[in-house]
Amino acid sequence: MAVSLSVSTVQPLGDRVFVKVSPSEEKTAGGIVLPDTAQEKPQVGEIVAVGPGKRNDDGSRATLDVKVGDKVLYSKYAGTDIRLASEEYVLLSEKDILASVQ
Amino acid sequence: MAVSLSVSTVQPLGDRVFVKVSPSEEKTAGGIVLPDTAQEKPQVGEIVAVGPGKRNDDGSRATLDVKVGDKVLYSKYAGTDIRLASEEYVLLSEKDILASVQ
Amino acid sequence: MAVSLSVSTVQPLGDRVFVKVSPSEEKTAGGIVLPDTAQEKPQVGEIVAVGPGKRNDDGSRATLDVKVGDKVLYSKYAGTDIRLASEEYVLLSEKDILASVQ
Amino acid sequence: MAVSLSVSTVQPLGDRVFVKVSPSEEKTAGGIVLPDTAQEKPQVGEIVAVGPGKRNDDGSRATLDVKVGDKVLYSKYAGTDIRLASEEYVLLSEKDILASVQ
Amino acid sequence: MAVSLSVSTVQPLGDRVFVKVSPSEEKTAGGIVLPDTAQEKPQVGEIVAVGPGKRNDDGSRATLDVKVGDKVLYSKYAGTDIRLASEEYVLLSEKDILASVQ
Amino acid sequence: MAVSLSVSTVQPLGDRVFVKVSPSEEKTAGGIVLPDTAQEKPQVGEIVAVGPGKRNDDGSRATLDVKVGDKVLYSKYAGTDIRLASEEYVLLSEKDILASVQ
Amino acid sequence: MAVSLSVSTVQPLGDRVFVKVSPSEEKTAGGIVLPDTAQEKPQVGEIVAVGPGKRNDDGSRATLDVKVGDKVLYSKYAGTDIRLASEEYVLLSEKDILASVQ
Repeated sequence: MAVSLSVSTVQPLGDRVFVKVSPSEEKTAGGIVLPDTAQEKPQVGEIVAVGPGKRNDDGSRATLDVKVGDKVLYSKYAGTDIRLASEEYVLLSEKDILASVQ
Repeated sequence: MAVSLSVSTVQPLGDRVFVKVSPSEEKTAGGIVLPDTAQEKPQVGEIVAVGPGKRNDDGSRATLDVKVGDKVLYSKYAGTDIRLASEEYVLLSEKDILASVQ
Repeated sequence: MAVSLSVSTVQPLGDRVFVKVSPSEEKTAGGIVLPDTAQEKPQVGEIVAVGPGKRNDDGSRATLDVKVGDKVLYSKYAGTDIRLASEEYVLLSEKDILASVQ
Repeated sequence: MAVSLSVSTVQPLGDRVFVKVSPSEEKTAGGIVLPDTAQEKPQVGEIVAVGPGKRNDDGSRATLDVKVGDKVLYSKYAGTDIRLASEEYVLLSEKDILASVQ
Repeated sequence: MAVSLSVSTVQPLGDRVFVKVSPSEEKTAGGIVLPDTAQEKPQVGEIVAVGPGKRNDDGSRATLDVKVGDKVLYSKYAGTDIRLASEEYVLLSEKDILASVQ
Repeated sequence: MAVSLSVSTVQPLGDRVFVKVSPSEEKTAGGIVLPDTAQEKPQVGEIVAVGPGKRNDDGSRATLDVKVGDKVLYSKYAGTDIRLASEEYVLLSEKDILASVQ
Repeated sequence: MAVSLSVSTVQPLGDRVFVKVSPSEEKTAGGIVLPDTAQEKPQVGEIVAVGPGKRNDDGSRATLDVKVGDKVLYSKYAGTDIRLASEEYVLLSEKDILASVQ
């Protein structure tokens, strides 16, 4: 029962999304700068897989507002980190996504 | 997958709003003064982007009561701070906005 | 984007009210006296602005039971303090108002 | 805007009641005795004013089960204490009333 | 406004019950034994008065599943203790009753 | 009002079940072994009485999924322990049962 | 009443699943690597039994989105560990499963 994990095999459940973490861009001119004193620092990433959405009480699905390819801002303290082939990923609930970046 | 962030690219999700923080006006005569002993100090800012609103249980949207351009009072301890091109911004849930300032 | 704040410009959101804090009347004969040992001390104030009420799940508004001009008792530990032109104000949720004083 | 408080001017909001605290009757023969080791000691009082009741989700009122004149047992640790003209009162939510005493 | 309390005057509100605490029977052969290491020790008592039940959202009552005369097991740490005429009583919410004893 | 407790007299309320605790089988070959480092150790027992189920909001009952005679796994830290005639029992909410053992 | 436990006898209740824990694959090239600094480390396992699903308020079942044979990622800190015949298992609520691995 060896499980081989690669990016394409991870399928989030419910309202979760699978996000590739973007390299930190702190202090880049004109780019995002996360102050050290910020209470909750946002992180930037790109969605590589989305869940089918949470089930409503009547059994239907509440489909997600984000999709594969969206760039998103999310709280650094949310979700579960995974390192896969030396890249960093995170599994997030959609509600932990603060904004999309177009 | 370099993500370049500028103010116009940030699109809040759900009931979140993107707010440009106004410079502190402490001790200005006639202006707002935040006492040091206040339990929770309000901050002033201007909304630069709003989310589509939270989804209701029936799938419809609960549209926001605030709009781009509104000046708002919000709790200093709410939301997620972002510094962009040396300006300060905050991503807030609408429920953390205490009042609008006309 | 200078925001000039004065009492008349503050418009509470949702079920919030904007209250001018009455000067403390501790130990006034016949008046209210707040014992030092009280768990939660009530404060007296007058409502100067009210929000439109919380949205119900069906999108309608739950209008407030209080109105501008009402004198109210509220918990000293509730809400957000604001000092404006050397007067003290507080932004409260209606649920933090304990009683009106006729 | 001086607010003069007397018992008859206090009108509780929502499901709150205004109660005049009865003098402690500890160790009175045949009366109530509150053991020192009790986790939560009940207090006795008489209701002097009641709120209109909590609003239901459909906007109607959930009227209170208690009325002015009822003697009640309530938890000593519930509500907000007020001293008025050297008498002790408490503002309680109806749910903090344990029993009426007929 | 002297309030004289006796067992028959206590009328529980909502889903509360008024229970006469049974004397402890620890270590009685064949009887209940409450181990010192138990996380939550049950107590035995007899119901002497019941409330009308909690109001449902539509205003009707959720009548109680227990009645006067029922012997019940309840958590020692639940409710509010009252000593009346040198007997011990407790005011409990019905949900804190673990089982009836027939 | 002496209450004599025996196994057959205990009738759980609501969604509670009355369970006879099975003797610990730690380290038995092929049997269950509970690692010392486990966050929450499951216990094995047999149901000897079940409650009528929780009342739904419309007054009907949500009948239980387990029945008398079922062997169950439950969290060691759930419920209320009772020792009766030198045997160990536990009163559990059905939601604290992890699995049945056929 | 000796209860003999083997994998095939464990039947999860409600929305729980019974999962065989996969051996840790930390630092395997191309495989999953769990950084030591991760807040919440995911674990990999294979589902060997599933519950019937949680009951909805109307008595119907919310069937599970996972099935026997699915490989899943779940939080290391979720659920209840069981060791059976020198293999490690865990009883999880479906909501603690982060993603399936195809």
